[in-house]
Amino acid sequence: MSSSRLIGHLIESLRCLPGVGPKSAQRMAYHLLEHDRAGGRRLADVLEQAMEQIGNCRECRTLCEEACCSLCSNDRRDRGQLCVVETPADVLALEQSTGYQGLYFVLMGHLSPLDGIGPEALGLEQLQSRLQGGAVRELILATNPTVEGEATAHFISEMAHACGIRATRIAHGVPMGGELEYIDGGTLSHAFAGRQEI
Amino acid sequence: MSSSRLIGHLIESLRCLPGVGPKSAQRMAYHLLEHDRAGGRRLADVLEQAMEQIGNCRECRTLCEEACCSLCSNDRRDRGQLCVVETPADVLALEQSTGYQGLYFVLMGHLSPLDGIGPEALGLEQLQSRLQGGAVRELILATNPTVEGEATAHFISEMAHACGIRATRIAHGVPMGGELEYIDGGTLSHAFAGRQEI
Repeated sequence: MSSSRLIGHLIESLRCLPGVGPKSAQRMAYHLLEHDRAGGRRLADVLEQAMEQIGNCRECRTLCEEACCSLCSNDRRDRGQLCVVETPADVLALEQSTGYQGLYFVLMGHLSPLDGIGPEALGLEQLQSRLQGGAVRELILATNPTVEGEATAHFISEMAHACGIRATRIAHGVPMGGELEYIDGGTLSHAFAGRQEI
Repeated sequence: MSSSRLIGHLIESLRCLPGVGPKSAQRMAYHLLEHDRAGGRRLADVLEQAMEQIGNCRECRTLCEEACCSLCSNDRRDRGQLCVVETPADVLALEQSTGYQGLYFVLMGHLSPLDGIGPEALGLEQLQSRLQGGAVRELILATNPTVEGEATAHFISEMAHACGIRATRIAHGVPMGGELEYIDGGTLSHAFAGRQEI
């Protein structure tokens, strides 16, 4: 325990950050106190603002401080394509590496009945009324390739089919630059079964 | 870049923490926003308090929110022993693993002429008046075993000798549980030269 009560509290509070254990929290606290008070003050300020002001976009449910996020309010995006992802970080990843010009719908999780996360927690009613709205031509399912992500994708694809909308799933297979020898069996069998004409 | 300006700021601000790159900062920001707003608010609050209220102990210069830290104001500590360390984290480490009952003096750095850190920046005048005060019998030098730490220890030991006070240096050698085969040459030659009668 630190000889100062307040430094002890600071070290304890830093542990709410993911991947930060007692030693890193101590290192962070002393670093800020000894070398970067200005950075620490700025962090405190931005953190408070972010925790208070950031809510969810009323259209796509992603995290943002406005009522409607910058992607949903962008007139140049194609309203005919809707890509379903699990988290706001997934939106970021897709925006950074694909040329996708459609819109997103962010579930903020995946179906997980054991944890009590059902369709209503993921905003699927909202998604359904959007599908029934008529603007969407293609629903792209980009949930994670985990058991829960696959189940969620399957559930949502049935919703799309019921509305007569085409549903697609992003491809799974061997990652670019990977070596077959070191790829796990599940991925390899998926890649083999999903082979395409070249 | 995040689609939200405020989330972008939060990710940027988190990078003032040591060891936090763009990916970890992003992971931290989304974790707090999605799963732990209460922790984020508490961190913002404690961080602000700490940056504003924590100063240096007037006796030993360690970081604390009071004028005099809990160790220096503890009447049961031996005022005849004074241990010189580089940082507040070193005080913590010594308190946790040794049974030392004396007091500390925290340099908040080490002599480093190239970076403009001379004796005045380390509070060595204050240390000198303390040595001249007459209470200190033994000055224990526990600066790091680096070039700068050794030079600082040497400089301070001369100050102690000039005041007629005994100066000691913590032992350097093979760490407990280490294997000779894997110890670096500098440490091994230090340990060999510093061998003691058993």
